[in-house]
Amino acid sequence: MNAPRSEASPSTARRSSADMRLLGVDPGLHLTGYAVLKLSPLPVLVEAGVIRLSGKATLPARLADLHEQIAAIIEEFAISHVGVEQLYAHYNHPRTAILMGHARGVILLAAGRLGIPVIDLPSTLVKKTFTGNGHATKSQMQRTAASRFKLSKPPSPPDVADAMAIAYVLGTRLIVPQRAIKR
Amino acid sequence: MNAPRSEASPSTARRSSADMRLLGVDPGLHLTGYAVLKLSPLPVLVEAGVIRLSGKATLPARLADLHEQIAAIIEEFAISHVGVEQLYAHYNHPRTAILMGHARGVILLAAGRLGIPVIDLPSTLVKKTFTGNGHATKSQMQRTAASRFKLSKPPSPPDVADAMAIAYVLGTRLIVPQRAIKR
Repeated sequence: MNAPRSEASPSTARRSSADMRLLGVDPGLHLTGYAVLKLSPLPVLVEAGVIRLSGKATLPARLADLHEQIAAIIEEFAISHVGVEQLYAHYNHPRTAILMGHARGVILLAAGRLGIPVIDLPSTLVKKTFTGNGHATKSQMQRTAASRFKLSKPPSPPDVADAMAIAYVLGTRLIVPQRAIKR
Repeated sequence: MNAPRSEASPSTARRSSADMRLLGVDPGLHLTGYAVLKLSPLPVLVEAGVIRLSGKATLPARLADLHEQIAAIIEEFAISHVGVEQLYAHYNHPRTAILMGHARGVILLAAGRLGIPVIDLPSTLVKKTFTGNGHATKSQMQRTAASRFKLSKPPSPPDVADAMAIAYVLGTRLIVPQRAIKR
């Protein structure tokens, strides 16, 4: 039994957790992975996929497309919490990271405009909690996602598995509220 | 007279330049400088200032505030073109730069959602065209802004002068359309 409930004694579970609908997002200007989980109170995968942005469109047009699609997902699934990975202190490719920052910015904006809380989760915590290995490879993340959510095959591209892991780990944080969430 | 018209022969000026209203923006998560210029066809400063974001608010709430204020400026002044500085290849403080990327992203989004073109200008080009020195200091930029726009004192904080310079240099690019704008 790998569900997060196993970490929490029943008395610590928040009563409202059955109503929580979580969106995990892995932002990018080409591909943005997303996953919608319902806590009932065990996590149930509702939908997951990628938002693909046209490489031919201008940056403002791509950001507008991404923002609109994320806002539509938040509204369609009545999302209560959004999870993203925390920023690191260091990046090997700062320019790429800044462009990712543009995508992350319009995703946080979509949540902010709707008053939905956004929780930052450290990348290693997401990998460790999801797979047991804080430095899991992309294919490990994909295999674990298939196993945890009983999918017939590993989700692809890896951005989808990453978003599933973020939503899943966000769920474990919300079910165990006595653990502080580092921001 | 240092106005950009001096660079262009009258026949190269676009007929519609008298209708252009340019917004220069210097994005930041604490302070975002902005400047609105009208080309009639010489550049006239309409308004400039800073958008200050609350350090106490969450990142999504700050991004929502910034986005709303920029969208309001674009609509109020019927902005036709937005100018921002181009991203660099290298940054000394990648994490700060990624956070700037969040702010830049929601600014580009505000333009993108309204279908307003955004022009990226290299930072050294902005400084060189504005002051004559591609590595001008903040106070040089502020003094030049006071002189060019006949202000009683240098605009402060420096973010305002930077936004004025971006709008001004955007104007010179639009008045001299035969010069390719590097993106």
